[in-house]
This record gives sequence, C-alpha cells and structure tokens, in this order.
Amino acid sequence: MERRLAVVDLGSNSFRLVVFTAGEGWWKRTDEIHEAVRIGEHQEVGGDLQPEPMRRALATLELFSHFTRATGLDQIEVDAVATSAIRSASNREDFLARAREQLPVRVLSEEEEAHYGYLAAVNSTTLDDGAVLDLGGGSLQLVRVKGREARKLRSWPLGAVRMTERFLPSDEPASKKALKALRSFVVDEVSDASWVGNGGRLVGIGGTVRNLAVAAQLAADLPTFGVQGFLLTREALDDLVMRMAAVAPADRAKEVRGIKPARADVILAGAVAIQGVLEAGDYEGVEVTEAGLREGVFFERHLAPSGLFDDVRRASVLNLHAQYDGVDERHVEHVARLALQMFDDLGDAGLHGGDPVERELLWAAAMLHDIGVRVDYDDHHKHSRYLILNAGLPGWSQREIALVAQMARYHRKGSPGLDDLQALAQKGDRELVARGSALLRLAEQLERSRDQLVRAAHVHVDNGRVELRLEGAGDVSLAKWAAERETDLFERAFDKQLDVVER
Amino acid sequence: MERRLAVVDLGSNSFRLVVFTAGEGWWKRTDEIHEAVRIGEHQEVGGDLQPEPMRRALATLELFSHFTRATGLDQIEVDAVATSAIRSASNREDFLARAREQLPVRVLSEEEEAHYGYLAAVNSTTLDDGAVLDLGGGSLQLVRVKGREARKLRSWPLGAVRMTERFLPSDEPASKKALKALRSFVVDEVSDASWVGNGGRLVGIGGTVRNLAVAAQLAADLPTFGVQGFLLTREALDDLVMRMAAVAPADRAKEVRGIKPARADVILAGAVAIQGVLEAGDYEGVEVTEAGLREGVFFERHLAPSGLFDDVRRASVLNLHAQYDGVDERHVEHVARLALQMFDDLGDAGLHGGDPVERELLWAAAMLHDIGVRVDYDDHHKHSRYLILNAGLPGWSQREIALVAQMARYHRKGSPGLDDLQALAQKGDRELVARGSALLRLAEQLERSRDQLVRAAHVHVDNGRVELRLEGAGDVSLAKWAAERETDLFERAFDKQLDVVER
Repeated sequence: MERRLAVVDLGSNSFRLVVFTAGEGWWKRTDEIHEAVRIGEHQEVGGDLQPEPMRRALATLELFSHFTRATGLDQIEVDAVATSAIRSASNREDFLARAREQLPVRVLSEEEEAHYGYLAAVNSTTLDDGAVLDLGGGSLQLVRVKGREARKLRSWPLGAVRMTERFLPSDEPASKKALKALRSFVVDEVSDASWVGNGGRLVGIGGTVRNLAVAAQLAADLPTFGVQGFLLTREALDDLVMRMAAVAPADRAKEVRGIKPARADVILAGAVAIQGVLEAGDYEGVEVTEAGLREGVFFERHLAPSGLFDDVRRASVLNLHAQYDGVDERHVEHVARLALQMFDDLGDAGLHGGDPVERELLWAAAMLHDIGVRVDYDDHHKHSRYLILNAGLPGWSQREIALVAQMARYHRKGSPGLDDLQALAQKGDRELVARGSALLRLAEQLERSRDQLVRAAHVHVDNGRVELRLEGAGDVSLAKWAAERETDLFERAFDKQLDVVER
Repeated sequence: MERRLAVVDLGSNSFRLVVFTAGEGWWKRTDEIHEAVRIGEHQEVGGDLQPEPMRRALATLELFSHFTRATGLDQIEVDAVATSAIRSASNREDFLARAREQLPVRVLSEEEEAHYGYLAAVNSTTLDDGAVLDLGGGSLQLVRVKGREARKLRSWPLGAVRMTERFLPSDEPASKKALKALRSFVVDEVSDASWVGNGGRLVGIGGTVRNLAVAAQLAADLPTFGVQGFLLTREALDDLVMRMAAVAPADRAKEVRGIKPARADVILAGAVAIQGVLEAGDYEGVEVTEAGLREGVFFERHLAPSGLFDDVRRASVLNLHAQYDGVDERHVEHVARLALQMFDDLGDAGLHGGDPVERELLWAAAMLHDIGVRVDYDDHHKHSRYLILNAGLPGWSQREIALVAQMARYHRKGSPGLDDLQALAQKGDRELVARGSALLRLAEQLERSRDQLVRAAHVHVDNGRVELRLEGAGDVSLAKWAAERETDLFERAFDKQLDVVER
C-alpha cells in the first residue's frame, strides 16, 4: 500500500509543492511543481509583503490547489509550511487569510524551520558532529549538531534575496568593496553565536547551495549526475564568487555555466554569505545534499517517532533496491553474501587491504547490481549504473556513488574501469573497482541457478595458490563450471590464479 | 495482477530461458539466462547429436530447471521448445527422454517454428508485405507475408553453425572462393522457393542478424541504444563480410568491433547466408528486430486469439507508458491532446507540412514525456529520453525512436536539438524536433495544474499573427500566464510571434 504526502514550501525565494510517496521499504519524491515567486522581494526586515509579490504568491497557491485536487491529494495529505519571509511580515495575517482559501498554510517558527533542515541533513548525510547551514531567500540558519542530535540553532535575516537588496542591488558587476562589506557583515553576525566554529563538518541545504555545487562541478569538469554528496570547497566557492562578481547579474547565467537564470540575480549574495559562514566557522567547505526543508517535513512523519534513519548509507541503498521490485530479493542478497565472504577471506589472507569502506561499497553494488533489469534486460548492467548515478545515494560521497555504479556496471561484460567517472576517483580506485567487479561477477556465476544452491564460497590461499571452495546444498558442479569461465577478472584483479573446487 | 511465462528456446546455437511478465496494459521481458550450448555442433544433417554437445545441453537444462523452481515458475508457466538441430536429430528421442527429466520439452515442427518467427516479426515491426528471415544455428527459414498474414514458408538446413562446418571450417581467414561457394549455394537453394523475391520488405530475426546489426552500427559510428528498427543494408553487410573474412575466426571478435566472442567462429557463414537471401530475393537490406522465436511463443498466448497487435507502433508506445505507472495518465493524455490540437491547427494554416508521421511522433513523445520521473524527479526529461532509447519502440525505426526521445527530452529545459543522435537524422529533423518540443512544452504549461482545466487549445493564424486561444472549464489565467513564459521555443520553431489569449 502506497502513502502519499504533499509538502508545500512557501519559501522567500520560491514556492514548491513536492509529493513524496512511500511504499513497502521505500520512499521517493514522485512529483513536483514550483514557481520562483520571490514573495520576499522588496520586503524590509519585519516589514510588509509587497503587493506584486503577494499577487504572484496567491496565484501560485491557486495553481497548487488545483494540482493537489487533480492528483487526488486531499487536505489531510497536504502539509503547507511558510518560512522566514512570511513569518516576519507585518502583514502576514492578511496574507495568510487569503492564502488559506487555497491551502491550509502553517507558519513555521524559527525552531521548527531549523528542525526540518536538521532532519533533512542528518538523514541524507553521515553528519555526526558539526553544523547544518540552511540558506534561503530570506534567512540563513545554522544548527549545531553533536552525536547526530540538534543542540543549538540560530537564524539570521541574511538570506540571498535580502542580502542582494542590501549589498548588491546594482545591475552592474559587483565591486570588491561591496563583496567585502557583505562578507564582513555575515562573519560578524554569524560569529555572534559562540558555538559556530566548534569543529566538525558543515552540511549545506537549500537551492543556493545546490546551484553553486552544479556550477562548481562544471567548472572542475566533474561528472554531473546530481550534487548529492558533493563537497563544495572554499577554493571552488571563492573562484565562483570571483567569476560571478565580474559580470552583471543579467549576464551571470550566460557567463557562468550552471547558474540558473531564475537565481542569477541573487546567487552571488548567497555565495558570499556562505563564504562568511566558512570563515566564521573555519570550515574547509560545505557538503551538499539534495534534501531540504521539504524532506525534513516528510522524514518527521515517515520516520516517526525518532525522525532518524539508524544508518543513512544502508537506508539509501535499501531504499533504491526496494524501488525496483522486479528484482529477485533472495538472489541479490545471496550474491552480496557470497561476494562478501570471498572479500573477507581474501582480506584475511592479505590479498587486499581489508578496508571496511571497500567492503561496504561492494555490499552496495551487490544489492543494486540488477536494478537496471527494470529498464530492459539487455544491457541491464549499464542501466543499473545509470539508475545508481541518477538516483544518487544519500550518505555516500560522489566518489563512492561512482564506485558503486562502476562495480554494478561490471558485474557482467566488459573490462572493469572508471570510464567517464575518472575525475572523481582517488589513487587506487581503479584497482578497487576491479576487485569488486571480479568478486561480484564470480558471486553472480555461483548464483546463476537463483536457488542459493551454493551455500557458501570461501577462499583459501596456500603457498600462493588460491582456491575457491564451494559448499553446496546439493550438486554444485554447474556453478563450478560457470565460475571457472569467469575467473579471468579475478586473476587480473588479484594477480593470482584461481582454482574452483567443490568441498 | 501479473502473469509470468518462461519460454525456453533450445536452439542449435544457444539455449535460452526468457521470462516474460505481463501486467495491466503492459508486457516485458523481465529475466533471462542463456548458454552457448551449440547442440548442433558436428551434427550431420539428419544425423546424431554428438555426445559432448548433448552433455552441455543436459547440464544447461538442469541449470534452467533450478532457475525455474527458484524463481517460482511452476511447470504450467514454462514452455520449452526445441528447434531444427534437435528436430532433425536421428537420436532425438534419446535426448528428449533425458531432457524431459529436467523440463517438459516440446519439439516444434518447421511450420510451428516458422509461425513463431512470423509472430515475432509482425508484432515488432510494421511489416505488411514481404518476408521474415529467421537465421539460426541449424536452419534458415523464410516466411512470405502478405497483408500481415503468413502465406508460405520454407526451411533449409542453412544455419550458421552448419554452413560454417561445411564451407568455412578452417582456422584461417576465409578465401574468396569459399565465400563465393557458400553464397552461391544459398542463392540456389533459396531461389528454389518461387515466391522469394515477390517484393516487399525483409525482416530478420535471430542472434546472427542482431549481432551483425551491432557491428554495422559501430562501423558506421551510429548511436548504439539497441538494434530494434535498424536497417542492415546490403552495403553494410558486404563490408562486414569483407572485414570478417580477412581475419582468422579466433581474431574476429577482436578485429571487428561488436562481434561477440561466442559467435565469432560462425557469424561469417551466417552473414554470407544473409547475403545470399538478399541476392535471391532482391532485397535492399534486412530490417532488424530484437524479437525472436521466444517472443513469438509469448505473443501467441498474450495476444490470443488473433496473435497480432492491431497497431504495433501504438502498442509499443502504450506498453512503455504503462510500465511506468507512477505517471499521471489523464495528465499525459491531455498533454497529448492539446499538443496535437495545436499541431493540427498549425498544419491547416500552412505553418508546417502536416506530415502524419510527424504527428504520430509528437503523440508518442507526449505519451512518454514523463516516464523518467520513475528514475528521479530531477532531470526527469533526460531520464525519459534514456528510457525511451534503451527500451526501444518496436515498429519504429531507429531514427524515429531518436526523434521521440529528443522531443521528450526537450519537453522542459534546454534548447531542442539532436544531441548525439545526429547521425540517425534526416534533413529537416532538427526543425521537426524543435516544432514538437515547442508544442509539447506549451501543452505541458497549459496542463500544469493537472486538472485538464484548459479543455482545448486552438491556434489561429491571421495576417501573420498567431494566437493561441485557450478554452477553459474555469478561469485559465494561470495557464495563460504559464504558457506566456514558454513561448520562445514556439517563436523560434515557427518563426512567428505567439499571443496567448482566453476565449
């Protein structure tokens, strides 16, 4: 049975309606409609929402209301939340009265808004100790996280729309002076919270952070399969600020690859605000997640009562796996089991470094190696790769997502490598992919009959001779035969001859 | 409720178990396992199956039997069919008795085998008048088709494995003389059927044809998203034969890109046999389909009693659409309706040529534009393109599949073009994609509220002024507003300014 929830986010920069669907063991964002409303345009801090932005806002809510009725989402399944610009408006009650003719809007307090941002961040990254930065059009929020718990929070009216109007209102390229003034202002304001800079990592959410990440990927010629897990470094951000400042706002989307036209006029101020946070907190960069306030609202219900996934990395692999239900579950789990058995034995024998992260990558690839069958049986290994890259895996870095995708790609056919994901790799990753693909391909051969007939597959290394010993629930000669035809990857990856034996 | 059928094809070259699943309005191949058994190896025409091939065959059937039990396919849902090599074997009863300990094998008569090939071809192409060529390891069959009906059939023991053993048994590159002898032999044999060469098109099925198509695509630097709908021309085939003949069988897969190692030793004879058929029937080439005997067996049941799709092109679009059930059906159908209304009006006004095929392409793109949401909402237009290309659309040429994919790609974001599919395009296709994308994007904007509020969208052209008149079931000012922001594609595609009005 599937359940749906529509979260409507009435942000200062844009309004967005997102539909989440949850089924047996999985959840995903299944629909969306958004509009760059800019309700906070020309609004003073604590002042009135202006007539023209309000008109746009109400028209958009009317559209959303049509959308929810048309797609069968009744009132109970819609959660519409308003943030900083509306919360702080002196005429908010006027606006809300009219807005509520369309949708049952609730105004989030600063604490609630920060809480949802925090839930989004800790459920889509491995953030344990550090801070969550949520940069919107109206406000900038920071939540201090320790042991995965939210400890402190602060909100400042330092959002991208507001900062643009105050510091960078010109149609011309931005002056060094204006940039410096904005940055100093943010550093001063943010430093006011004594706990900023207490160490740990910084995770960033919001459209500004995501768009900057896309531009940074393009600037560095990195693969662009999404920004989940991307680290936007200080250097990359400084470079973007320099390039964006050098051109007029109207030319920014044209001149700086990846910058969205609808954001081009306010993104520079947002970028400088993030520079300020990095400086104030002495962070090396900001880790990007695609989750945001809306996911936070969804997670609160979906993961009640704790609101937290126990293990984000594991949860995101299982979630993706469960979305492709054509796949034979017992088969996939058994392939993972056999591959990990071999991996562990080889590690014990010193044939690889025994890195637990490498083990986890192999497990993820095994769980996901067949999801591409849903696209088409032919070339399903390539389709699995495509689906892994494009769905993303919250909690995993871009490099790790690429490695999982490559191992799944090479579970059959071809010679394992990094292909066009090279730029994300570290030293030794080609070998890591070769090892993982070799073990996955062997495990797949052992489980060709799909009936878990080969109960266990242990590797014994003796005097440089490597033996794969199959334990069967019956006659495993067919599995042995199949595995023997696929030993070449193993022999190249581990530089050892492999003998397959029944025991 | 999903139904599954496992078809086991005991062919002369390979044994293959394919699982078909059919649900509400869709069917697809969902699983597969195969083995290059070569049961016909070293078998004289009408002679004994040899001991070693029989051993491989029985081991493979045991594997398939494990597979069917493990995946919950009971006997009733398994249809195992044997073709030429087994049918013609003098020791077939011995073999069958042992094979039937594993699976309930039935031996197809020549007529039945040809019938399934015919069903596969006419249900995956638009073949109306012409012939179906099925080239296996043991036999070559031709079915004469007229008005989509099978009229005549003939089978010859001219399969790729048999012809290799008789004409090209050497480990060396093939001599001109041997090639000529083989080709003349095929021409003579095939010309014996007086109806070969009665005109029309030739559709080819079987692994040899498919593998040659892949190699031809690579040789011509064409996109390789599958071979469904590919036309293997006489020239391309001649070129492949020349290149394959110039190298020893053992080097063929290395030297000729795309040739599968498991087929490398017999594919040359298969290619020459096809040359013979093209010559005997005076065909310009062979149209490739990915469907084969196994699909024929499935179609007979799935499409009972007629065994035929009414309209293959329409059926394959609706099939792909139905596989992605997250998509809002009424929305998609309404987008198609609005896009076609505009297309028709513009054609009547002489703003495009009014080509009915272009209309059909637009309809297909509209029906499929949102299927990519199933991968991820972000970039779903790109995912739709990927799914369309990789699932293929039986009944559509490679060029047409590419055009549908590009229109779906550009239903949102970006500037319409042919991207890396250029090589498949004809003159004017860039403009065709630009027109289709523009109309699709407008229709999508009009249906943004998802409630079919804009009932109709008609285009009026008057004195060079183009007006899009919206008829609403209520206030359509929001739709008008949305459409107005997306008129630029239209204006570029049709070189006319567009005004959106309510009426």
